[in-house]
Amino acid sequence: MLNIVGVGICEGQITERASKLISQAEVVFGSKRALQLASKFISGEFHELNRFDERIYGEIESLAKQKKVVVLSTGDPMVAGLGTKLKGNVEPGISSVQMALARLGEDLCNAIVIDAHARNAEKELELIEKRNLLILADKKFDPSIFGTRRVALLENICGNEKILIGKANEIKISSDYSILFVWR
Amino acid sequence: MLNIVGVGICEGQITERASKLISQAEVVFGSKRALQLASKFISGEFHELNRFDERIYGEIESLAKQKKVVVLSTGDPMVAGLGTKLKGNVEPGISSVQMALARLGEDLCNAIVIDAHARNAEKELELIEKRNLLILADKKFDPSIFGTRRVALLENICGNEKILIGKANEIKISSDYSILFVWR
Repeated sequence: MLNIVGVGICEGQITERASKLISQAEVVFGSKRALQLASKFISGEFHELNRFDERIYGEIESLAKQKKVVVLSTGDPMVAGLGTKLKGNVEPGISSVQMALARLGEDLCNAIVIDAHARNAEKELELIEKRNLLILADKKFDPSIFGTRRVALLENICGNEKILIGKANEIKISSDYSILFVWR
Repeated sequence: MLNIVGVGICEGQITERASKLISQAEVVFGSKRALQLASKFISGEFHELNRFDERIYGEIESLAKQKKVVVLSTGDPMVAGLGTKLKGNVEPGISSVQMALARLGEDLCNAIVIDAHARNAEKELELIEKRNLLILADKKFDPSIFGTRRVALLENICGNEKILIGKANEIKISSDYSILFVWR
């Protein structure tokens, strides 16, 4: 039995359903951050995931044939997450996308979410002609591609949070876990 | 103090942070369904919202100047929700969009979310040329506009759940709270 469980990105964002799945698991896998967020609910054994590749996914799926296994996913498993990598039941969690929309007062139905984290998303950025963009970005991402459009940069949500609003060509991204919101 | 709090769409989807905000509120507003989902956390007075208009939003915002007020939002306040209608702090919740993506194994970063619930979204449907679409739909929505494309229809998530997969022009929507997922 394999459950892929979203644990949110801030302390206290785990749902009741998620906490039950975690506490019933015989084995829990997760990144250091995910294990921290879920720690008070874990009662079985737990393992920190340091690599994320086909081989480890295969091992976890094999183990789940015999045991109740939970794989934790920071945020939501279906937002650039583990939900498409592993075969199992997915339990949603609060994603950084939702936090950013909440902070900015923007509705998901007026935005397009783009994963530009450690990948080239150039082609997708053309969607700015259609809607606001919410971009999961890292330090390598250069906002100046959007010229003088109005943008918001969100860094360290739930931590030492910083929200910067300005023109795209005047903003620099300094964290590998940033969200850039671009108004159409 | 006004908090707009997402309560998810299924039983048990309220986060720890959300439950605290609800239990600390002196006055709680919400639809019948939202009040049901949050009932065990409500300790102050509560009022069922039957209408959703500028006047009631103004009354709630006035009251929130003197009291700790929570407005419950089924799902997430930033998904076709109350988060853009009221001025206050938004606490995210699990939306039907997330449940649909979880069920279908699809990532939000490969889809565009469209609100076609009691509104005409015709122009936005052209985005199918760019990405998969996840459409919040009602009975009036006619899937046949997508021809023979592959679609999934999700009805009554968390309830008497039904997932139908087929061709767009062979599917009929029978519930006013449906999600239609259209593969590009």
